[in-house]
Amino acid sequence: MPVPSLLFDLDGTLVDSVYQHVLAWREALEAAGLELSVWRIHRRIGMSGGLFLDALLRETGRRLSAEEVTRVQRTHAAAFARQVAQIRPLPGARDLLAYLTKARVPWAIATSGRRESAQPMLDMLGVGPDVPVVTRDQVEHAKPDPDLFLAAAERLHVAIDTSIVVGDSVWDLLAARRARALGVGLLSGGYGQDELEGAGAYRVYQDPADLLGHLDEVGVRVSL
Amino acid sequence: MPVPSLLFDLDGTLVDSVYQHVLAWREALEAAGLELSVWRIHRRIGMSGGLFLDALLRETGRRLSAEEVTRVQRTHAAAFARQVAQIRPLPGARDLLAYLTKARVPWAIATSGRRESAQPMLDMLGVGPDVPVVTRDQVEHAKPDPDLFLAAAERLHVAIDTSIVVGDSVWDLLAARRARALGVGLLSGGYGQDELEGAGAYRVYQDPADLLGHLDEVGVRVSL
Repeated sequence: MPVPSLLFDLDGTLVDSVYQHVLAWREALEAAGLELSVWRIHRRIGMSGGLFLDALLRETGRRLSAEEVTRVQRTHAAAFARQVAQIRPLPGARDLLAYLTKARVPWAIATSGRRESAQPMLDMLGVGPDVPVVTRDQVEHAKPDPDLFLAAAERLHVAIDTSIVVGDSVWDLLAARRARALGVGLLSGGYGQDELEGAGAYRVYQDPADLLGHLDEVGVRVSL
Repeated sequence: MPVPSLLFDLDGTLVDSVYQHVLAWREALEAAGLELSVWRIHRRIGMSGGLFLDALLRETGRRLSAEEVTRVQRTHAAAFARQVAQIRPLPGARDLLAYLTKARVPWAIATSGRRESAQPMLDMLGVGPDVPVVTRDQVEHAKPDPDLFLAAAERLHVAIDTSIVVGDSVWDLLAARRARALGVGLLSGGYGQDELEGAGAYRVYQDPADLLGHLDEVGVRVSL
């Protein structure tokens, strides 16, 4: 097997932003008259905003017009932007990316967020313009569809079936399986280990630092 | 067996406040120079503030002076107070409590929070002065020690071994076992089902509404 490439989710995988996203969605949903417990929102995070809303609407039996959906997404973006100063990279995230770059292991970022809300987090990770970043704006279907990760592999000119998807949510891991990539789960988004394993994770680590310490387990054997 | 009494945790069990507590702790810990990922804080929520800090300090290998600990607790309380307007009762919480009262099933609340921060949430639940509420201020040791639930049973004049502890965190369920009470877990605090079962939950429900629909499973058989 060739050395694998790594395709990273962003929120909860490289950046500690999941809980702020969850509370920003709660605020936006309530403003639209949708009362949902916070843990239910947490369990849907990682899908795109559109799929995420569809899933919640299906569960609550409510319908929103296209205009209302747009308004909810805007309220979420505004509420999240107010919290962005509180957000930090996850432990080891910068080290892991730097290590992969130095070792010439191809890596990319594929996020179901939009470019606009992803940019401040890419900045705090020190991700430069030379790194392929695929955002929701650039593909037709978001996670758990495989499009984001397929596009990321294409941008890297690597085969998807020698790629490893690294994510914190079940939606990342389901998308990985549909793409025929290996999925690695991180606990740093707040999902439980059993949920990630149940969604097909090949391995589960605590956070990027823990993955960095076990890269040989996923086939990244490099001597620097 | 006599009809059981119910001893409720508050945050995450009756009130949807866990994620706001988590982010308030993150802010307070960072102000004290302790950088911790949000999911690690979430996994410790439900212990008392003191035990919670001890556990996190042990994991990080840091030490804080008594003054610093007090400052962290105050910063947390202030950050949480800023969010309290965003907090709602969990689905079915008010109905469940009203049902138990009408059915003359004894119930009480036992929280590892302090009276001051619990009061706004007791108000939003409509919990009157006739309901026994045991807070962290009133016992020597908090969860996972059994003191809070033992004190709550004592205030109700009921036996602990015919009582059911209802909580959302593993600390509630561990405290229940030490007290020899039956433990019922709710997913509404964001812990996974396996974590609650692993801590000894007799049954796990989604939220207070789901528990209300299954009261017969825990031995509350009443005809109103």
